[in-house]
Amino acid sequence: MTHIDISKPILDKNDRLAQSNKELLREKKIFVLDLMASPGAGKTTAILATIEALKERFRIAVIEGDIASDVDAQKIKAAGVPAIQINTGGVCHLESDMIRHALDQLPLDDLDLIIVENVGNLVCTTEFYLGENAKVMILSVPEGDDKPLKYPTIFQTSKAVILSKTDTMPVFDFDYEAFERTVNSLNPKAPIFQLSAKTGEGIQQWAEWLANQVKHAQNAPDGQSLH
Amino acid sequence: MTHIDISKPILDKNDRLAQSNKELLREKKIFVLDLMASPGAGKTTAILATIEALKERFRIAVIEGDIASDVDAQKIKAAGVPAIQINTGGVCHLESDMIRHALDQLPLDDLDLIIVENVGNLVCTTEFYLGENAKVMILSVPEGDDKPLKYPTIFQTSKAVILSKTDTMPVFDFDYEAFERTVNSLNPKAPIFQLSAKTGEGIQQWAEWLANQVKHAQNAPDGQSLH
Repeated sequence: MTHIDISKPILDKNDRLAQSNKELLREKKIFVLDLMASPGAGKTTAILATIEALKERFRIAVIEGDIASDVDAQKIKAAGVPAIQINTGGVCHLESDMIRHALDQLPLDDLDLIIVENVGNLVCTTEFYLGENAKVMILSVPEGDDKPLKYPTIFQTSKAVILSKTDTMPVFDFDYEAFERTVNSLNPKAPIFQLSAKTGEGIQQWAEWLANQVKHAQNAPDGQSLH
Repeated sequence: MTHIDISKPILDKNDRLAQSNKELLREKKIFVLDLMASPGAGKTTAILATIEALKERFRIAVIEGDIASDVDAQKIKAAGVPAIQINTGGVCHLESDMIRHALDQLPLDDLDLIIVENVGNLVCTTEFYLGENAKVMILSVPEGDDKPLKYPTIFQTSKAVILSKTDTMPVFDFDYEAFERTVNSLNPKAPIFQLSAKTGEGIQQWAEWLANQVKHAQNAPDGQSLH
């Protein structure tokens, strides 16, 4: 029996366009963060807190990916930052051509950092390179400390892991040590940031890490820059 | 430009196998519930509570779908119920051939109800018919009251909607009226069950609804039965 892997040509085409995005972004010296998480893990809230922490140092824009609605883009625009809403119309992840359409609508000469909020999904989002500099994931405390065991790939693909809604840890009997142990075994290099938008915990540490990533990429010699 | 929709042959093949599953299940008079939700919304906890509420009235088994690990199947087996773990190895949803493999390992002559716990995903799981009698979804309070706007299809595909972790409503400022309004506009017929595994709220109402579905299907005249 012949087995045809239909996912390969799709991924090949996606990667070619992602490479083209990357070249454009390198030329413009823009750092792109692809933020992934489950639905309702707090991606938009984390982005708003990141904007607040870094808006004096970097010129920021946001690309919002959702199946439907523009709820999130409205929230970002209200924070005074350019936001493009992508509605995937059923597709469970963003792809590089969607990002390119969004980039075409942004003032690229006036930006340092673009945060992409991917569709709420712990699986499909990890497979598509968009031309970003880093993928980072958020897990929220209510989802439970066993999630790294069940969705290992996203933890392995992420350059950093944000644990959100940490103020609710006592409510959900979240075992932080077990969580940290599993994350470290899957991805020893990734720092874990504990964030609570309610108390403000951890926002500064996370924002500093991201700021260092952006500065490091912008100062890298040409050819190696922004990768 | 020719546009080839590669998703169609996959779905066609899936639907043929699903139909075959359905015929087998109808013959065995087994009701199948496909339970869908985000990662960490409380699917396994809801299943354990459902087993506890219905185990004296129905012979129950569980099929667990996960990217990786058998954490959930172990929990179900500990409750004294047959459980089959499917590891999709990266696939973001269950398909009908995976269900058939699991059915082949279950004592079908001694079962009334099979609960399928799908992979944690609000998007891809809705597209695949497995041969089930009903799809039901869980949204957890921490995910936020705006999720029906962002993931409308899963709310439209579900025969009932469970809102879980309702004891945490004050912690998350969840606007129940807004949530109910949106769900009703997307799917006017679907009842909403408010569940808290911590306080026991709503388990009985949900279990009664499910029991009625099972009995209705088992008592339907042949040919219409279990659909």
